[in-house]
Amino acid sequence: MENPFTDEYFMKKALQEAELAFDKGEIPVGAVIVIDNKVIARTHNLTEMLHDVTAHAEMQAITSAANFIGGKYLKGCTLYVTLEPCQMCAGALYWSQISKVVFGASDEQRGFENLGTQLHPKTQVIKGVLAQEASDLMVRFFASKRK
Amino acid sequence: MENPFTDEYFMKKALQEAELAFDKGEIPVGAVIVIDNKVIARTHNLTEMLHDVTAHAEMQAITSAANFIGGKYLKGCTLYVTLEPCQMCAGALYWSQISKVVFGASDEQRGFENLGTQLHPKTQVIKGVLAQEASDLMVRFFASKRK
Repeated sequence: MENPFTDEYFMKKALQEAELAFDKGEIPVGAVIVIDNKVIARTHNLTEMLHDVTAHAEMQAITSAANFIGGKYLKGCTLYVTLEPCQMCAGALYWSQISKVVFGASDEQRGFENLGTQLHPKTQVIKGVLAQEASDLMVRFFASKRK
Repeated sequence: MENPFTDEYFMKKALQEAELAFDKGEIPVGAVIVIDNKVIARTHNLTEMLHDVTAHAEMQAITSAANFIGGKYLKGCTLYVTLEPCQMCAGALYWSQISKVVFGASDEQRGFENLGTQLHPKTQVIKGVLAQEASDLMVRFFASKRK
């Protein structure tokens, strides 16, 4: 039997979170953190609702997962996030020593890759997973805001 | 009469916060955020106590100040922090559009300047304010940990 726990499987859960953000009028970014194929954090962007620039999906997911684990390092964990992390989130991921980061759509302007933010050397990065779905959601969001 | 509200004046308050962190066994970094010469956030590093890599003094200060203001942008505000911000904190400061960042000691390895993290173009940066005091506190902390 095929392993059902693929990167796409968990990214779909992150996309569900992004849709929750969309429905609240938040820029639609969602995240989950997984350890041993178990989701231990599910979060979405809440910067508008909380009036807090630090309330990106990834930041909340890191805090939530660390709380679940009872320790601040996320070794053995994977973050799935629909949009490429920004400098702040990549900087937090650096400190967390998370094992793997999987993101969907790239963010040419604000994403950590083009801005050169350093991740932990042990962190593996995979990108482009369900990127089109994540990107479509963003395009739909900004189109709805312009109306 | 001379203006008593100098950068040193507010940095001393940040140093007092750093000493509170020291007393809790946390890496001693403290921060305050000021608007119109009024302190609206006072925080110190709590990463160990909260098991949370995102609990740097600056991150808590940004959240706290935004909560005070009732909006996510920190225009007109100044952050005083005893140690140069890391990538994560600089990334958060970028999003906050804070007007001014004043830091004490430089952090060659983990600080945002050498790592090239982008601040908001409108943010003014001043460094080296009471740097020796901040640095002495760090040295004293790590010496005590090695014992």
